[in-house]
Amino acid sequence: METTNGSLNRKLRMALVGGGQGSFIGRVHATAAVLDNRAALVAGALSSNPERAKASAPAYDIAESRAYTSYQEMIDKEKSLPVDQRIDFVSVATPNHTHFEIAKAAADAGFNVICDKPMTFDFAQAEELVKSVEKSGVVFAVSHNYTGNPLVRQAREMIQGGELGEIQAIRANYIQGWLRTAIEAEDQKQAAWRTDPSKSGAAGAFGDIGTHAYNLGRYITGLIPEEISCNLKTFVEGRKLDDYGHAVIRYSNGALGTVTASQISHGRENDAFIEVDGTEGSLQWRQEEPNVMIVRKNGSPHQMYTRDPNAPFMNEMGAAACRLPAGHPEGFFEAFANVYRFAYDAMVARAAGESFETKDTIYPNVYDGAEGMYFIQQCVASSADNGAWLPMKYENARS
Amino acid sequence: METTNGSLNRKLRMALVGGGQGSFIGRVHATAAVLDNRAALVAGALSSNPERAKASAPAYDIAESRAYTSYQEMIDKEKSLPVDQRIDFVSVATPNHTHFEIAKAAADAGFNVICDKPMTFDFAQAEELVKSVEKSGVVFAVSHNYTGNPLVRQAREMIQGGELGEIQAIRANYIQGWLRTAIEAEDQKQAAWRTDPSKSGAAGAFGDIGTHAYNLGRYITGLIPEEISCNLKTFVEGRKLDDYGHAVIRYSNGALGTVTASQISHGRENDAFIEVDGTEGSLQWRQEEPNVMIVRKNGSPHQMYTRDPNAPFMNEMGAAACRLPAGHPEGFFEAFANVYRFAYDAMVARAAGESFETKDTIYPNVYDGAEGMYFIQQCVASSADNGAWLPMKYENARS
Amino acid sequence: METTNGSLNRKLRMALVGGGQGSFIGRVHATAAVLDNRAALVAGALSSNPERAKASAPAYDIAESRAYTSYQEMIDKEKSLPVDQRIDFVSVATPNHTHFEIAKAAADAGFNVICDKPMTFDFAQAEELVKSVEKSGVVFAVSHNYTGNPLVRQAREMIQGGELGEIQAIRANYIQGWLRTAIEAEDQKQAAWRTDPSKSGAAGAFGDIGTHAYNLGRYITGLIPEEISCNLKTFVEGRKLDDYGHAVIRYSNGALGTVTASQISHGRENDAFIEVDGTEGSLQWRQEEPNVMIVRKNGSPHQMYTRDPNAPFMNEMGAAACRLPAGHPEGFFEAFANVYRFAYDAMVARAAGESFETKDTIYPNVYDGAEGMYFIQQCVASSADNGAWLPMKYENARS
Amino acid sequence: METTNGSLNRKLRMALVGGGQGSFIGRVHATAAVLDNRAALVAGALSSNPERAKASAPAYDIAESRAYTSYQEMIDKEKSLPVDQRIDFVSVATPNHTHFEIAKAAADAGFNVICDKPMTFDFAQAEELVKSVEKSGVVFAVSHNYTGNPLVRQAREMIQGGELGEIQAIRANYIQGWLRTAIEAEDQKQAAWRTDPSKSGAAGAFGDIGTHAYNLGRYITGLIPEEISCNLKTFVEGRKLDDYGHAVIRYSNGALGTVTASQISHGRENDAFIEVDGTEGSLQWRQEEPNVMIVRKNGSPHQMYTRDPNAPFMNEMGAAACRLPAGHPEGFFEAFANVYRFAYDAMVARAAGESFETKDTIYPNVYDGAEGMYFIQQCVASSADNGAWLPMKYENARS
Repeated sequence: METTNGSLNRKLRMALVGGGQGSFIGRVHATAAVLDNRAALVAGALSSNPERAKASAPAYDIAESRAYTSYQEMIDKEKSLPVDQRIDFVSVATPNHTHFEIAKAAADAGFNVICDKPMTFDFAQAEELVKSVEKSGVVFAVSHNYTGNPLVRQAREMIQGGELGEIQAIRANYIQGWLRTAIEAEDQKQAAWRTDPSKSGAAGAFGDIGTHAYNLGRYITGLIPEEISCNLKTFVEGRKLDDYGHAVIRYSNGALGTVTASQISHGRENDAFIEVDGTEGSLQWRQEEPNVMIVRKNGSPHQMYTRDPNAPFMNEMGAAACRLPAGHPEGFFEAFANVYRFAYDAMVARAAGESFETKDTIYPNVYDGAEGMYFIQQCVASSADNGAWLPMKYENARS
Repeated sequence: METTNGSLNRKLRMALVGGGQGSFIGRVHATAAVLDNRAALVAGALSSNPERAKASAPAYDIAESRAYTSYQEMIDKEKSLPVDQRIDFVSVATPNHTHFEIAKAAADAGFNVICDKPMTFDFAQAEELVKSVEKSGVVFAVSHNYTGNPLVRQAREMIQGGELGEIQAIRANYIQGWLRTAIEAEDQKQAAWRTDPSKSGAAGAFGDIGTHAYNLGRYITGLIPEEISCNLKTFVEGRKLDDYGHAVIRYSNGALGTVTASQISHGRENDAFIEVDGTEGSLQWRQEEPNVMIVRKNGSPHQMYTRDPNAPFMNEMGAAACRLPAGHPEGFFEAFANVYRFAYDAMVARAAGESFETKDTIYPNVYDGAEGMYFIQQCVASSADNGAWLPMKYENARS
Repeated sequence: METTNGSLNRKLRMALVGGGQGSFIGRVHATAAVLDNRAALVAGALSSNPERAKASAPAYDIAESRAYTSYQEMIDKEKSLPVDQRIDFVSVATPNHTHFEIAKAAADAGFNVICDKPMTFDFAQAEELVKSVEKSGVVFAVSHNYTGNPLVRQAREMIQGGELGEIQAIRANYIQGWLRTAIEAEDQKQAAWRTDPSKSGAAGAFGDIGTHAYNLGRYITGLIPEEISCNLKTFVEGRKLDDYGHAVIRYSNGALGTVTASQISHGRENDAFIEVDGTEGSLQWRQEEPNVMIVRKNGSPHQMYTRDPNAPFMNEMGAAACRLPAGHPEGFFEAFANVYRFAYDAMVARAAGESFETKDTIYPNVYDGAEGMYFIQQCVASSADNGAWLPMKYENARS
Repeated sequence: METTNGSLNRKLRMALVGGGQGSFIGRVHATAAVLDNRAALVAGALSSNPERAKASAPAYDIAESRAYTSYQEMIDKEKSLPVDQRIDFVSVATPNHTHFEIAKAAADAGFNVICDKPMTFDFAQAEELVKSVEKSGVVFAVSHNYTGNPLVRQAREMIQGGELGEIQAIRANYIQGWLRTAIEAEDQKQAAWRTDPSKSGAAGAFGDIGTHAYNLGRYITGLIPEEISCNLKTFVEGRKLDDYGHAVIRYSNGALGTVTASQISHGRENDAFIEVDGTEGSLQWRQEEPNVMIVRKNGSPHQMYTRDPNAPFMNEMGAAACRLPAGHPEGFFEAFANVYRFAYDAMVARAAGESFETKDTIYPNVYDGAEGMYFIQQCVASSADNGAWLPMKYENARS
C-alpha cells in the first residue's frame, strides 16, 4: 500500500459534507478515504443542521475550528487558509438534491471533489457541473464504488484487451428488498429521502441503484449506448417513486443490454450482478461475492478468477486494486476506497502541476456522473411514454 | 413409485415418432416414458427415412412388425389393432415443423399425445390442434419438462397457496452457449434444424428455449400476461433466426416480467433460471442445480429448500414429484419423466371412462403449448416492429 | 446410449433379491439396471416373506411364475431353465447380513452378481466370497455407486494419467443427519436394520457410508493404504452401532488420508465429499452437486469441470459415463446405472466366452467389496483399541 | 461506529513492532487498528534492522522522534513520556520467535498488548507470558482474527444460548496451497521464516494455521478438549517443518473433533472452514465467504444466515461486530479490526480504573494464546510418537 502520495510527500486533506449522526454513506466515505493512509479528514460540514454539524465533528476527529455549519462557510473559510493547511478535496455525501450546489461550489473554488451518486438532481445540473469541472480543472470522482472492485477492473482490462472478443450482450441487475414495505412512512431516514422526489430526483430505485448497474456495464465493456426503452414500476402503495424497473439498451455496435433494479425483492440484500457475453468469452461477477469472477469459453472448464494480486492471470489494473492476498476477503470498503485511491493519484498530479486524464479514468468521473443523470432522465421519460425508445448516447460519454 | 396404473392394471403402450439414430430428444422421451415402469415402448416411426426408421427400432426393443416407416402408417395400423394391443399414446419427438401433422393425426385417431415443444410450427397450427384435441378428448401433454422438477411444482403450489403473496415481478432467463459459432454450417444435426426457419419456425432461440423460460414463469405464478415487447437478435453471421433475445411482459395484475434467452453465451450450458418476487416472499430456482430452491423473506435467514419428499416443508405436489430421498440428486430425466407420469394419470382416467382435468393440469397441456406458439408469434412480431407492445393474452390460457 | 449388448444381441436377464414393498435400494437397483435398455428384470425373490415376495412382483413386471419365495428357490429354478430363458445375473438388494449367502449361492450357480454394499456381514465372509467368484468366474460388481459418476471417473483417469502428480492427501467425508434421533425405535424400516448389529454388521455409519467415502478415495487415487487409526462414536442414546466416526489412513506412498462419516449432523442429507491434493494439482467433488468438479493449480484460475460428454477437457472414461449433454443434470440414478452398465460389458464378454478384466475394473468389484469389509473390520478393531494403528493393506486390493 | 472511546474521550495511542517494508501482517495490524477511528498509530519499532525501522516510519505517519530502532528503546522511551502522550498499547507483528520477549517487555512495562499468533515460540514462554500479564494487569489480545467475524460471534452466542443443543462434533479445516513448492528457497520472505524452525517454532502449518482452526472450534463451541492425537507431514522436499497435518480431539463431553491444516493444496487460498454438529442443529462457516453461515435442522429448510446487523435473527454479539448493512461485504480487515475494537473496550475500562473481563473475553486473550501453544506442543509430541493420544486440557483454558 502506497501511503506517501509520491512527490507530494504528505497526506491529502479532506473535507466531508454530510455524514452527520445517523448517516450511512458519510461514514463509508470517511472510512474509505483514509483506508490507505493517504488522506486525513480535517474539515467538515457534517449536517445541514448547524448544531448537529458541530456535534458530529468529534467522532471524525475534526477540530472544532474546522467543523463548519454549512458547506458555504466551509468553502469560504478553507479557501482563505494558507495553502499548506487548506483542504485538497471535498467529499459530498448528502442527499441527492444537494449534490449539485455543493459540488459546484467546491469545484468553482478549485477544490477537487468526490461526489456521491447519482451525481445531481437532474441532467441539466449535471451538464452545468461538467462545465464547472472543465473550467476549474479540478479532479472530480463519482462514487460508483463497484467499479473499485479488483475483479471489475480485471474484467474491464480483459475486455479492453480483447480477451472476450466483441461484446454482444450485457445483463446487469441490482436487486434489493429493503423497501418492500413503506418504511419511509416509519421515519426510516435512509428510506425517507430516497423515496421523496424532492430529494431523490426523478427516479427512485432506478436513480439509486439502477444507475450503478448501468454504470457497471458501461465501465466494464466501454460499449456506447444508442437507445433505451424503460419500464418503471411503483409496487408499494403510496410510494411516489419507482421501486422496480427494467430497461433495454441498444448499443452502437449492435449489442443488446438489460438493466433491472429492484428494491422490493424479499430478502435480497444488495445483489448487483452482471453478465457479459462476447464473441470469444463470457464473464459474470456478483457484488455480494466480490472476490470471484467466472469467465467461460466454450470447450474449456469454467474459470473462476479469484482476486489474487500475485497471480499471473491477474492483469495490471486488477492486481493494482488489491490490498490483500488471495483468500483474504476484501469487500465494500476496499472497493469504495479504490475510487478514492486512484482519484488521489490524479489529485497528486494536479497538485504537482502535472496533467492527468479526465475522461478515460480508472475511477468514475464527472462525465460518468452526467451520463448517469442522462440515463435517469431518459429512463423516466421512456417509462412515461410507454417504454418508447429514446436516445441514450450522451455526447461526452467515455468509450 | 407407482407402477400399476391403478385400475388399468397394465402398462400403457407407447409409440414414438422421431428418435432415430443421432437423435437427442427422442432418446430422452423413450427413457423418461418408462422410468417409472408404467409404460412400454411398443411401436415407433423413428425416422422420416424409412430405412433408418427400421434400423433404429431394435435399440428401442420395438418389434420389427411395429417399426413403421411413417407416422401415417403407424397410426393407421395401430388403430386397426385389437384394443388390448394397440398403443395408448404417441410421443412426438421430431423437428418442430412436423409436430402439428403428427400430433393432429394421432389425436384425431383417438390416441393420447405427448408432444415436444414448441408444439407446432406456428400459432395457427396450434389453434387448430387445440380444436382437434378438444374434439377427440385425448390427453395431450407438451414437454415443457422443467415444470416436472419437484421444486418447480413446490414453488407453484406455494404461490397458489399465497405463501409469497401477490406476485409482482418475474425474471426468467435461459442462457446457453452452444450456438456461439455457426455449427449449423458444420453439419451438426441438432443445430441445423433449429436454425432453419423452414423447420424451426419463426423463432430460433426464442422458440427453442425462450418458450421454456416464459412457460416456467407462467406455470409457477399463474399470472396472466397482457402485453409483450420483444427484441430479438441474430449475432452469429449468416444465421437466419434469432440466437439471442429479450422480452418484457406486462401481466394483468400489474406485475412486470422479463424473459431473456441466449444461445451465444460462451460456456453457458443450459441455464434456465427464474426469480419471482411477491409481496410476502421471493424465490429463485435454477435448472442446473434443480435440487435446491431459495426462498427469502425480509428479516429471516434465507431458506434453502432442498428436494426432500419426506420433509414437512414440502407441499403435496412437490413431494409427489420426487423419486429419491433428499441428497440423492435427481435431474433432467426425472423431471422429464414427471411430465409423462402425471399425464399417465389422465390417460388412465380416460381409459377408464372417467373425466380428467384438461386445462389446469399439473403437466403442460395443449393450451400451454398453444400459448407458447402465441408467445413466439407475438415476440417475433414485436421485434420486427421495433419492440412495439403487442397483446399477449391468449384466450385459452390457464390461470 | 448403447442398447444392443453388442454381439450378444439381446437384453441381459436380471433377477432381483430384495426390493419388496417398502424397500428403497431395491427399487434403485431395478431402475438403474434398465435405464439404458440393456437388461430386463425377469425374475425375483423380492422379500424373505413369501407372501410379500409374491405380492411385490407385479410392480416390477415380474411374471408370477418367476416371482420366487426365496433366493434358493430362485437360483435352483432359474438354473434349470433353458439357456435362452434363464437369468444372466442376480442383483442383491437385501440387508447386509444376507448378502453373503445370496451372492455366494448365485456365483456358485454361475450367475453374475451385482451386490449391494457393504458386500457381506464381515470380512471372513468377504474372503470366502472372493474365492467363490474366482472359482466360478462370474462377473461380480458391488454398488459403490458414487464411482459411477462421470466426474468421479474423470478424476480417476486424470490422476492415473498423472495430471495431478503424486497424490499426497485425501480428505473424504460422508455426512448425513437422518439418524440424529433414535428413529429405529419408531419402526422406521431403513433405520431399524442399519442400527441392528445382527443385520448391519460390526459397524453402523462406518459400514453404511464410511465404506463409500473410503472407496471413493481408493477408486479415484489408486493409492494403497498401509495403516489405519479409527475412532467411532455412538452419539444417540441406546443405539448399538456407531453413528459418527473418523479414520486416519497412511498410504504406502506416504500420503495421508482421512475419512469422516456422520449420520447425526442436522439437516445434512447425503453429503459425500472428497478432496484430493497432488503435487501438480488438487481437485474436489461433491455427490450432492455431481455435475461439477473443481480442479485447481497454483497460479491458474480455478477450473470448474462440468459434466460435458462433448467437451475436449473430458477424458475417455469421463465422457463414456455421460448420458446427457452438459447442463442437463444427471444424478443418483444415472451414476448407479453406470455401475450396471459397465458390468454389463463384462457380462457380455463372459457370455461370448471372452476374457474380461476382474480386478482393475471400471466398476467396483468383489475385491473392492472385500476391501471395504476389511476396512470396517480394522476400523472397528482400531476404535475398540483406543484408535491404535492397525494394518489396512488388503492383499487383493487393486492399485 | 463508535469513535470516542467513551469516558476516555480520546484516541488510544498505538505502537507497532514489526511491519517494516515487505511486511504483510504489520500493515494489516496498522490498518485494522485504526479502522474505527478509535486509535492512532504514534510510535513504532518497525524492523529489527535500525535503518529499515527508521525508513519505514513515514509510511505509517509515525513521527521520526518516535520511530525507534528497537522495541526495548521504544518501551523505555515511551514509558518515560508524560501520561497524556505515551502509548496505550503495543501491537506485536514480528516473526514468532520474537513475540515473547516483546510482548513480555510491553506487559511488564504496563502497556496493553495485541500480539500476533502463534503467541510465542513455545508453550513454556506462553506460560511465563500469562504470568506477566496476570501480574501487570494489562489488556492482552491475540490476533486469532477469524473470531472477529460477525457470523463467528453469532455462532458462538447461538451455541452458548443452546440453540444447537449439546455439541458432539467439530470439523475444522484450514487449507492453503501457497507453500506447495519450496518457495522458501527462493527468498520469499513470508515463506522463509515460517518454514524455519528457529523462527517459526516447533510446527509449520500447524503452528501458522492449524492453531487458527483449533481456536475457531474452541471459540465457537466452548468445549474443553481432553486428549489429542496428531499426524504431521512434510511433503515438500527439504522443508524442515510440517506443511500438512491432521489432529483428532476428544472433548470432555464426549464430542469428537478434527483439525486439518494444509499449505500444499494446489490453488487453495485461505480456506478456514468449520462445521459443528449439535443435538439440536448444525452449522457451517467458511472464512473465504464470511458473510454467510448455514444453519441446519432436520425437517426445516437450510437456513442461510447472512451478516445483517439489522436482522431480528442476529444476536447481540453478532450484530455488534458488523459495520455495514447486509449485502455490503465485509472481509478480512473488518474481522481483524474487531479483535482490536473489542480489546479497546477493555483498554478504556483499564484506563478508567475499572475492572474488565480477562478470561471469557469476546476477543482472544493470553489464555487462548497459551492454549494455542499447548496445542502446538502436544500435536508435535503426538506426531513424533506415532499419533499417540496426549493430554490436551490446558489448565487455564476458557470454557
